[in-house]
Amino acid sequence: MRLTDIPTPAVLIESSRLERNLDRMQEAATARGLRLRPHAKTHKSPHIAAMQIERGAVGICCAKLGEAEVFAEAGVTDIRLPYPLHPVNAGRVFDLADRVRLSFIVDDPEIADAWSNAAQQTGRRLNVLVKVDVGFHRCGIDPVSNEAASVVQRIARLPGLEFRGLLSHAGHAYGATSEAEIAAIAATEAELLRDLSERSGVDCEEISVGATPTVRFSLEETGLTELRPGNYAYYDRTQVGLGAATFEDCALTVLARVVSHPARDRVIFDSGSKTLTTDGARGGHAGGYGAVLASPDETAPDLNLVIDRLSEEHATVRAMSGGTRLRTGDLVRIVPNHSCVVSNLVDHVWLVDGGRVVDKLPVAARGRIT
Amino acid sequence: MRLTDIPTPAVLIESSRLERNLDRMQEAATARGLRLRPHAKTHKSPHIAAMQIERGAVGICCAKLGEAEVFAEAGVTDIRLPYPLHPVNAGRVFDLADRVRLSFIVDDPEIADAWSNAAQQTGRRLNVLVKVDVGFHRCGIDPVSNEAASVVQRIARLPGLEFRGLLSHAGHAYGATSEAEIAAIAATEAELLRDLSERSGVDCEEISVGATPTVRFSLEETGLTELRPGNYAYYDRTQVGLGAATFEDCALTVLARVVSHPARDRVIFDSGSKTLTTDGARGGHAGGYGAVLASPDETAPDLNLVIDRLSEEHATVRAMSGGTRLRTGDLVRIVPNHSCVVSNLVDHVWLVDGGRVVDKLPVAARGRIT
Repeated sequence: MRLTDIPTPAVLIESSRLERNLDRMQEAATARGLRLRPHAKTHKSPHIAAMQIERGAVGICCAKLGEAEVFAEAGVTDIRLPYPLHPVNAGRVFDLADRVRLSFIVDDPEIADAWSNAAQQTGRRLNVLVKVDVGFHRCGIDPVSNEAASVVQRIARLPGLEFRGLLSHAGHAYGATSEAEIAAIAATEAELLRDLSERSGVDCEEISVGATPTVRFSLEETGLTELRPGNYAYYDRTQVGLGAATFEDCALTVLARVVSHPARDRVIFDSGSKTLTTDGARGGHAGGYGAVLASPDETAPDLNLVIDRLSEEHATVRAMSGGTRLRTGDLVRIVPNHSCVVSNLVDHVWLVDGGRVVDKLPVAARGRIT
Repeated sequence: MRLTDIPTPAVLIESSRLERNLDRMQEAATARGLRLRPHAKTHKSPHIAAMQIERGAVGICCAKLGEAEVFAEAGVTDIRLPYPLHPVNAGRVFDLADRVRLSFIVDDPEIADAWSNAAQQTGRRLNVLVKVDVGFHRCGIDPVSNEAASVVQRIARLPGLEFRGLLSHAGHAYGATSEAEIAAIAATEAELLRDLSERSGVDCEEISVGATPTVRFSLEETGLTELRPGNYAYYDRTQVGLGAATFEDCALTVLARVVSHPARDRVIFDSGSKTLTTDGARGGHAGGYGAVLASPDETAPDLNLVIDRLSEEHATVRAMSGGTRLRTGDLVRIVPNHSCVVSNLVDHVWLVDGGRVVDKLPVAARGRIT
């Protein structure tokens, strides 16, 4: 089967780019003596998780129990959830902990107490890491607060819990406007974790960081043990803007077709927010909902074409100056702003090698929101 | 089963509100002698399509062939695709046209020629409507251009095609900033269609309009035959902002749980862009990714709580002044900015009646992107 035979729109994964991205990240981590534990949210595919583990990944991360259950079923044996699980889910957590080496984060002494109690009642031990807020201001304890060290000490001592270390996510790097800013975020993250680890004086088997934009700088830091990037498997337009990748590294593209050409400077693609999402451009891009490769074998974006607006099933594309050579029926490929969320919209992705279709992979953990 | 037993996050449909929304729209259309043909993209549920048809809808609309195939399989017999289908899909179109009364739009004489040829080759007739651009500037012919009338005449005469009339979508009403602007958009839409119909002089069995914000004004127009709103089944925060509904009409909410409370003025819900999407607030709302009902039985939004940022699995919620009484573990409901795209993220929705779970409905046409 040829790429041009695929019904559009469709999500394509360029096989050689995927493999190169996985190889490079593993090699970089191994060279620095760091454990790589990729976040599987990007691909949600047991097939690709297996490729990562084959290359040396120590396990994977998932965001939700539902995703972890899919990967456990597929044979992954070490799963970390960098997510503040609530004890209302204790039943599923214990079931999963019986099947795989499971760990998750806590950022609240009261919730940690509840987990400790639940674990003791069932006679088990749960692996936890303390989530540290290094500037993203989502979850996590404030590492510079007076009580930070005592919170870590308190959680580390709780019966029923096996304290594994500290974990952070520098998600604010996605808002950075320069390489220097990203480097500074990575340096501050490592420093905050090292300091908190020292101050608390408890044994941290793991000091874990992870975000694709910062990972290249985290590699240079001391005191870290684990990297958890996810997006690096596919990359996307945002990562190109943040300097973490080039367009030639982007393994995920959306194959789309021109279905209308109602004005000289306007064409309509059959890929709307149901394939691209409305996630905005980050990393300094001018705007729009993705970069357009104006034919299936093109590798550089046509910067004259801007995906101006998305409806659910239409992309309204404007030619910035003059017209466009695209004609109704033509195929294009789109590098989306954010590849992780694109995976979550489709039941399967097409693994391709140039113009040839290699495989159709189920996105087995798609839509596992609980 | 009680609502509080549902694993979170989850998409809830309030049964009584859904029924009331369907009743009201059907009654309004019937009272004006207009045919109602709801767009099924909002719910993607054969169960709800059947409720609409029972109440008097003449059929449904779908955006893509894949959706239409699901509804045809479920027994819907009259399906319109207000979408510029490309002849590359002729095989699927003819298969579907053999099973249901199918119609779709064309906005390009060359594509119409190709459909005409394909139909003649197979000895069939395809029902088409000409799509008219009434100001949204997505697909459609420009009705005030010199050639508009001759394009309609030309398409109406093509062998193999059964010309059914004119169709438009006033999607630009979603960008309106006042009721008066929406009313004016609806009036202009009807006028452009009536004029083009007259000028072209061909028999238009159907003059079809459809968008939930404009439909209340389209009801007052003359010369129209069909209304195609979709969102009215569920409504959402955008429709409230556009004056098409109140929060008490919103049938779809996302049930979520507080999973972290890392600062006095910040809580984290377990519903991120994988349940809410990053579709922005429209219709004059201040921003944020939905309106928060601060407990499961609350009906009015807590305007002090702003969903400031979405990650894939987290909502970062800020209390604008002072703190919040929400505690980790608490349940909330969220009225999303855009309900149609929320349906597309989940495999099923929970039909509820107050605190009681009535049914778990599959979103059977979810993710049918081709």
